[in-house]
Amino acid sequence: MAREISILGAGLVGSLLAVILRKKGHQVKIYERRPDMRKVSGYAGRSINLAVSVRAWKALELAGIKEDIEPIAIPMYGRSLHMPDGSSAYQQYGKNNEAIYSVSRGELNRKLMDVAEKHGVEILFDHRCTGVNLATNELSFEVLGTAKKENADLLFGADGAFSALRMSYGFSDRVNTSQNYLEHGYKELTIPASAAGGFLIEKEALHIWPRHNYMLIALPNMDGSFTCTLFFPFEGAPSFQSLQTREDISHFLQSSFPDAYALSPTMVDDFINNPTASLITTRVFPWHFGDKNALIGDAAHAIVPFYGQGMNSGFEDCTVLLDLIEQYGEDWSRILQEYETKRKPNGDAVGELALMNFIEMRDKVADPVFLERKKIEKELGKLFPKEFISVYEMVSFSHTPYDTVMKCIAAQDELLGKVMSAGHFDELIASDAFKNQLSTWIKNYHASVQQLDFGTTTN
Amino acid sequence: MAREISILGAGLVGSLLAVILRKKGHQVKIYERRPDMRKVSGYAGRSINLAVSVRAWKALELAGIKEDIEPIAIPMYGRSLHMPDGSSAYQQYGKNNEAIYSVSRGELNRKLMDVAEKHGVEILFDHRCTGVNLATNELSFEVLGTAKKENADLLFGADGAFSALRMSYGFSDRVNTSQNYLEHGYKELTIPASAAGGFLIEKEALHIWPRHNYMLIALPNMDGSFTCTLFFPFEGAPSFQSLQTREDISHFLQSSFPDAYALSPTMVDDFINNPTASLITTRVFPWHFGDKNALIGDAAHAIVPFYGQGMNSGFEDCTVLLDLIEQYGEDWSRILQEYETKRKPNGDAVGELALMNFIEMRDKVADPVFLERKKIEKELGKLFPKEFISVYEMVSFSHTPYDTVMKCIAAQDELLGKVMSAGHFDELIASDAFKNQLSTWIKNYHASVQQLDFGTTTN
Repeated sequence: MAREISILGAGLVGSLLAVILRKKGHQVKIYERRPDMRKVSGYAGRSINLAVSVRAWKALELAGIKEDIEPIAIPMYGRSLHMPDGSSAYQQYGKNNEAIYSVSRGELNRKLMDVAEKHGVEILFDHRCTGVNLATNELSFEVLGTAKKENADLLFGADGAFSALRMSYGFSDRVNTSQNYLEHGYKELTIPASAAGGFLIEKEALHIWPRHNYMLIALPNMDGSFTCTLFFPFEGAPSFQSLQTREDISHFLQSSFPDAYALSPTMVDDFINNPTASLITTRVFPWHFGDKNALIGDAAHAIVPFYGQGMNSGFEDCTVLLDLIEQYGEDWSRILQEYETKRKPNGDAVGELALMNFIEMRDKVADPVFLERKKIEKELGKLFPKEFISVYEMVSFSHTPYDTVMKCIAAQDELLGKVMSAGHFDELIASDAFKNQLSTWIKNYHASVQQLDFGTTTN
Repeated sequence: MAREISILGAGLVGSLLAVILRKKGHQVKIYERRPDMRKVSGYAGRSINLAVSVRAWKALELAGIKEDIEPIAIPMYGRSLHMPDGSSAYQQYGKNNEAIYSVSRGELNRKLMDVAEKHGVEILFDHRCTGVNLATNELSFEVLGTAKKENADLLFGADGAFSALRMSYGFSDRVNTSQNYLEHGYKELTIPASAAGGFLIEKEALHIWPRHNYMLIALPNMDGSFTCTLFFPFEGAPSFQSLQTREDISHFLQSSFPDAYALSPTMVDDFINNPTASLITTRVFPWHFGDKNALIGDAAHAIVPFYGQGMNSGFEDCTVLLDLIEQYGEDWSRILQEYETKRKPNGDAVGELALMNFIEMRDKVADPVFLERKKIEKELGKLFPKEFISVYEMVSFSHTPYDTVMKCIAAQDELLGKVMSAGHFDELIASDAFKNQLSTWIKNYHASVQQLDFGTTTN
């Protein structure tokens, strides 16, 4: 029996979820806080480009719009590292030429809304949810200054890091919640396209200016420009707080990122005019109440952007939910319970992975020991493709549950520690004795992780 | 210059804080959510008796009401352990006959309100705070169904675990918060006084029925009765959920706590009629905004009750604040900043200590190895009174910052591990060689902790 499903939030996850549920025959209505972004420009100068990887592609395929997105997605095959002296280096992400894809958040969101409406989903804009009665699913809204009540049969909160549904969960007995802000904020800057409309730096890469406690990144746009994001401490020296005058800002940007500065005539103005935004990690448990309502995407697990897995993990919530709907049909009590059981550990894990990757991106990527390790990981992956897949590859190029990835980290650290302590890998690998030793190490590593749940899907 | 200070909450901490601030010459007004407990009985059948220790006595002395409370406080010199077979054992808390004191929460609160009003504090009851504008200190209230706004010059949130001020902090950018519920709830039960008005079990002890995953405790009241609290899992077997019929409940209570059951004719009815309450630990950061407002007591650090340090830590917040007022006079920006810097680590630490002590009380206290360790700790304290004070003694019988206590735990575990691995302490201690070895171990322990902040106050 089809249900009348209400969704809070017409963002990426809410819109995609609506399409998936509509395709299963349910009535679907979305309440969105903001005005229709397809009609009104609400751009606030603080977007971070999306990095679409296999987890999101799978969901886009299920929603039937993979083909619509592919033409506006730019593959990034590796990291382009920009050093303080102006030199640069390149690290390929995958051993099989895999890529993550730079996509404009706004464009993807607009397309998802279009598809949802095409399938018969109703989107009500300017509906700011102010609270949910968890027992009755009565929703309170403020609609352009006027209070309004609605009732939901089955409700999903896909309303982001500051989810109204999550807040209502938090006021309920025995609900655990946490919100933790990073000590770094971010600010959007821009590298424009060339006069001819081309790319001023390598197009098919994710650019990083790693500076230990802070970093600048840049992702390519279809128009030849790059959306740059400065991740920078709020306090301390240097910090958003310490840079007060135009001269301070200009001096800091020029001396820290000389090559980017030279390509961006608006960089100082961008810094002054664009808002400084904060970065939050949230957790909550439970993720659902009976067969009435559930949290999904950022509303369940808002994470920092450093692994490019925010949207990917939210979309994966949707594909797991779809699997469960196909398995349990109309038994929503069971569907939501199993959804929570399966996804909560992965929500926690991807939040941790994202925090860890900030350290990696801003600090470790420029460290020779780290670079050597990355090279060896790639070699091990080629020599033992069944037994060894690196953490980065599992996160970005596979559907391995994030929780499983987390559980592999210590074992990979131990393995790589042994290999790197043995001496120069390039020289050692020529010797049969070392190869035998390596086989034993890999066997031990594989034995220690093979009982974990690597999922059934590999594509 | 005196300020007009508003306090949310006329509970233990709010009332005590009001007295302290009033004595420093400030105007003080308290807004309390509930009706006046001195006029209306709002007793909900879910109190846990207070265990007043030195930290609270110090604050009560500063407020000038130590002498009023002493006559209604029953010293508890140790734990009386009740085993499943009906046998019992006794563990003295201190090596110098120290005690913690059982006091009725209601009586103490009423006395504190009386003293506050006597000093000229205005208490406005039935004022439920629904939100605070952190920048302007505009307070929204619901007063018996009617909305009301008030403005505060300087505001303290002493409004408990579900603090309205903490909630408003949580909606602010870059405020970290967490709330974690225990998987155990609690229910109040009673052991009545004897027909003659005497105590049916040892008066001057804290009684524990440790049962590994759950426990019953009992604290003495002035009228000869004991307030008992069952700490019990919400789910699992056995749990609040699993005990559904009167027969289930009766069988469980009788078989688990045979001696208490025999003394409590109302135990089954108490279990059925009294509410099941949950237990929460909360954290938040920051604890203050500029010189406008700050959190104190449970509002800043709600903790579980297992170390009896909820009120003690909240009162200590007040004495530290008083020290800072005496140091910095009217510089509230600095007072509140230093208050936060000093107390936040202690709020976190006492929350951890309380969670750890639940395991100790319900599980470890009946373990022979634990009992042996407690005995040795006492001996070490007597042999090396300057160098070694046990964790329990530091928490309950000293003013050592909780944060410092936490930092001593690993070093004490290491020390006791060495001592207990050496063999039978009672026999070894007769040998000079062991005494020398022991001196060296103690010296090493002391060296590893002596740079910590043990505070300046010893009484």
